[in-house]
Amino acid sequence: MSALLPTSAHQPTAEFLARELVEVERIFEAQLASDLPAVNALCRHVERYRGKMLRPTLVLLTGLAVRARQQFEPPVLGREHRVVAAVVEMIHMATLVHDDVLDEADVRRQGATVNRLRGNEMAVMLGDYLISNSFHLCSTLGDPAINLRLGQTTNTLCEGELIQLHHRENASLDEETYFEIVRRKTAVLVGACCRLGATLSGGSPTVIAALDAFGTALGIAFQIQDDLLDLAGRADIVGKSLGRDLEKGKVTLPIIIHLATADLPARRDALAAIERRDAPRLLAQMRGSGSIDAAHQRARALVVDAKRELQGLVPSPARDLLEAMAEAVVERER
Amino acid sequence: MSALLPTSAHQPTAEFLARELVEVERIFEAQLASDLPAVNALCRHVERYRGKMLRPTLVLLTGLAVRARQQFEPPVLGREHRVVAAVVEMIHMATLVHDDVLDEADVRRQGATVNRLRGNEMAVMLGDYLISNSFHLCSTLGDPAINLRLGQTTNTLCEGELIQLHHRENASLDEETYFEIVRRKTAVLVGACCRLGATLSGGSPTVIAALDAFGTALGIAFQIQDDLLDLAGRADIVGKSLGRDLEKGKVTLPIIIHLATADLPARRDALAAIERRDAPRLLAQMRGSGSIDAAHQRARALVVDAKRELQGLVPSPARDLLEAMAEAVVERER
Repeated sequence: MSALLPTSAHQPTAEFLARELVEVERIFEAQLASDLPAVNALCRHVERYRGKMLRPTLVLLTGLAVRARQQFEPPVLGREHRVVAAVVEMIHMATLVHDDVLDEADVRRQGATVNRLRGNEMAVMLGDYLISNSFHLCSTLGDPAINLRLGQTTNTLCEGELIQLHHRENASLDEETYFEIVRRKTAVLVGACCRLGATLSGGSPTVIAALDAFGTALGIAFQIQDDLLDLAGRADIVGKSLGRDLEKGKVTLPIIIHLATADLPARRDALAAIERRDAPRLLAQMRGSGSIDAAHQRARALVVDAKRELQGLVPSPARDLLEAMAEAVVERER
Repeated sequence: MSALLPTSAHQPTAEFLARELVEVERIFEAQLASDLPAVNALCRHVERYRGKMLRPTLVLLTGLAVRARQQFEPPVLGREHRVVAAVVEMIHMATLVHDDVLDEADVRRQGATVNRLRGNEMAVMLGDYLISNSFHLCSTLGDPAINLRLGQTTNTLCEGELIQLHHRENASLDEETYFEIVRRKTAVLVGACCRLGATLSGGSPTVIAALDAFGTALGIAFQIQDDLLDLAGRADIVGKSLGRDLEKGKVTLPIIIHLATADLPARRDALAAIERRDAPRLLAQMRGSGSIDAAHQRARALVVDAKRELQGLVPSPARDLLEAMAEAVVERER
């Protein structure tokens, strides 16, 4: 992300953020420290899944942006920001562990998944342990409104996953349902990160709603990019098993666009490729028809929408960093 | 349970309890009502798992017992008791759904399991949805202490499941570890039910601790009985797949007792039967050596311990019903 920083004026904020993220990791690890060595070993494995830290970064940056002055004056975040940042990362980790069970994935972040190493059963229970710990950690704040928001968010997230499973193998999935799934399973948590960061910094209802909308649009864009990478990314760069969506009968945006715009013979070819799980052939067809580009275009348009939501904030390095993150989400290759 | 009621003096309390449990079911169902028909269909299936309602009953009865007068004077419980009762039942349902995935079970409460009907993936996500909803429902109470207690409880519960998985196929599992697993995976939640019921009724710290100890001892006894039924019960009465523990390499108390007390040839026979998953042979050996009876005896002794914890309470129909429940737990055949 640092490569995207416009000027050195952002340097103090970026450094502050990096230090805060180290604290977030410490809170995360302390929460999962168990008196049971076997449990600790599993949690250390999951910590290796840690990647972009998108969700905690959004909690911290929205928290900073709401309190921002033109001049950077740390420290402006409280422990509650860091705790919420660790909580959302833990929820995200839980979804990764259970997604890998659902997807029968073998590789994540260049390493073996828990289900691959220790079996599905261990992965199911480990995911449960992470969910439980995320709620417990959140409860240590003693703020019922945050618990309630978190509970609503994870309810919606699970609903998104359940509808997605319900629509597996449904080649006539329409855009509306796709976006409903993505909003629930991915975007609502990203929106909640921004909402909670802003709320903890005492943002006005207008600012809180704008940042929630920013996160929601960003989350949808993020998921479209994820879906594109699963189809058209490079496994050595992405760092996880690719082509899983097609393998597991998940119909994603580029495929929906392709099927909706193809003429009859092209549509028949595409359905046959889906049927046979022939990813290279499907990909070639979609590149030819421009569906890959069209899906990418949709993601970029969402980033434009997202950035518009930031206009009500005081200009600040934190706001600039939020913009830079939004752009990075749809340009990333992993 | 009603057959165990000593006199008709308990009738008003039993009827009050039955009405309260209907309200608990209503709260449970309202919490899971989704705008998504596919999600509702799954939740309706899970509601069919509802059985003894042991955990909600304990919340309500401990709540009653703490506030009890000699004379029954309803209504003495608040909405918060019913909400917590629904919460603990939802946590329990989540563990059933995920346990069935872990155990590859096909039948529960005489019906097909979610994993059998809709696949492991749907069962994993449905369990997550139940966990999330239980935390969300709990958060609606706006009482941080309850959220914190619940989070601690589910953390410990997951740890119990994780250690149990870790010890699968470990024929040299000792009693101490067995009881540590059972305390965590089963008894801590049952203890929390009693603690929360008492806390919500304004019990003194001494009474709260005694009722937690009552529930914990009861929970361990309950699990021993469950383990006995899995080995030596009748499938048509128990209503779920039996012999799963042996099948999945789970070593339970009667087996531990048998292996610890057998002479060398009998021990070799038993280990061979475990190795071959030969439940009838193992059972015959254990009946012969008295290990089944010995395990049952341990459960009865725990019920005696549990009942002793009730002595500090004012005598009341609710206290009598708690005693009757404790006895029923180790006499039940399902």
